[in-house]
Amino acid sequence: MKILLDISFLGTAYCGYQVQPNAPTVQGMLNAAAKELFGFECDVVGCSRTDSGVHANQFFVTISKKGESRIQTSIPTDKLPTAFSVYLPQDIAVNSAKMVADDFHARYDVRHKEYIYRIWNGSVRDPFTYDRSWHYPRHIDDDSIKKMRQAAKHFIGSHDFSSYMAANSNVKSTVRTIYDADVYKEGDMICFRVCGNGFLYNMVRILTGTLIYVAEGKILPDDIDDITRSKDRSRAGITVPPQGLYLNKVVY
Amino acid sequence: MKILLDISFLGTAYCGYQVQPNAPTVQGMLNAAAKELFGFECDVVGCSRTDSGVHANQFFVTISKKGESRIQTSIPTDKLPTAFSVYLPQDIAVNSAKMVADDFHARYDVRHKEYIYRIWNGSVRDPFTYDRSWHYPRHIDDDSIKKMRQAAKHFIGSHDFSSYMAANSNVKSTVRTIYDADVYKEGDMICFRVCGNGFLYNMVRILTGTLIYVAEGKILPDDIDDITRSKDRSRAGITVPPQGLYLNKVVY
Repeated sequence: MKILLDISFLGTAYCGYQVQPNAPTVQGMLNAAAKELFGFECDVVGCSRTDSGVHANQFFVTISKKGESRIQTSIPTDKLPTAFSVYLPQDIAVNSAKMVADDFHARYDVRHKEYIYRIWNGSVRDPFTYDRSWHYPRHIDDDSIKKMRQAAKHFIGSHDFSSYMAANSNVKSTVRTIYDADVYKEGDMICFRVCGNGFLYNMVRILTGTLIYVAEGKILPDDIDDITRSKDRSRAGITVPPQGLYLNKVVY
Repeated sequence: MKILLDISFLGTAYCGYQVQPNAPTVQGMLNAAAKELFGFECDVVGCSRTDSGVHANQFFVTISKKGESRIQTSIPTDKLPTAFSVYLPQDIAVNSAKMVADDFHARYDVRHKEYIYRIWNGSVRDPFTYDRSWHYPRHIDDDSIKKMRQAAKHFIGSHDFSSYMAANSNVKSTVRTIYDADVYKEGDMICFRVCGNGFLYNMVRILTGTLIYVAEGKILPDDIDDITRSKDRSRAGITVPPQGLYLNKVVY
């Protein structure tokens, strides 16, 4: 058995999830915490990579002894969240823990993931969300929100999403299935929520940038199908900045 | 005429509002921004002092030329928020600006102020609010919330609030009038909102700590009047930490 932790983190201080030399990463913090807690090196495997500054309301990692697919510990499973928290910084929280089979894989076994992208649409910047949303100061009216929502619905389905993938990405298949996509407001915050079986590199940020083009009248909601079919990155919108992006839900 | 700015700030990075040598303060940032913007030294007067780590959803400052009660500028008043923002860090926002009379005083002319104290009552810490709420992990049930609300209502009125003032405070009068006080929940966040004509040093944080004593059953809602009358600091609750406190509204 290995440990599966349900965590959440504020990504502001981290160069993404994935460990890298000489840079603070979420995985690096978990590696260090696990070693402190168990007294031996561990393998920490995450459910996803994330870019620098991206946040997670929900994120899963497995913990096993280094080089092994299992771990033995005398700490009761329900005490693991609190035990880990002691060795983790305040911007990473362990919400729950359970034991999973040796062959469970935090990344390959994900069935679907949900992301939320938050756009702060106040005319003035908000000191409380500047590192946790993208400030887009030009007012987006209700009619434009409606158009963004209509456009988002065109993302739903199984498509080749090459048009919405960062250049120079190297993946076997660029086909993904989007189960649901929606745009809604929470006060002056505009949220884009999208759920799918997987996402290409920068895909959610480019989908969001494409919705911004819709809000700006550069493209129409009905143009989306054509942009998708074109497999032409230059026809989609900009890659919006990382700090508005949240991995929101992960389902195995 | 002098400039009156309506600002908001995240207090995490600051040693409070009030300028002090060799420490980052909100007033210090405004002093520097005003000098950059106008090309001369200015007097920046705030509506209130705030402690290190305390936030403001609304806060007012006046700006005048140093040593004078007025300022002359060619910048149109409605452009001042954007102009100031350029010279201020991301955790301070200027929401609006207007011109006020020479004899207007940002602090003495305040008629009433509203504070909110936010208590994160999730069992696990929240990485998104750790520096903007106080984590109280023991679950406070609906019945206890009701008692906290009942207790808060006893704060309303004109009273000598010495029992809820930090020791060694030096003020002429310890009588203040509380117009309204309430306790409510926003998900797992418990909020205490209090509005009055003025507040003693640490008063909102001690009132909140007293409500926590009510939640813990250490005192009853009806004990509040007696604690207030006693003018005995030791009978009130703890001083809860600064990061949950927000100056929320200021009325002139």
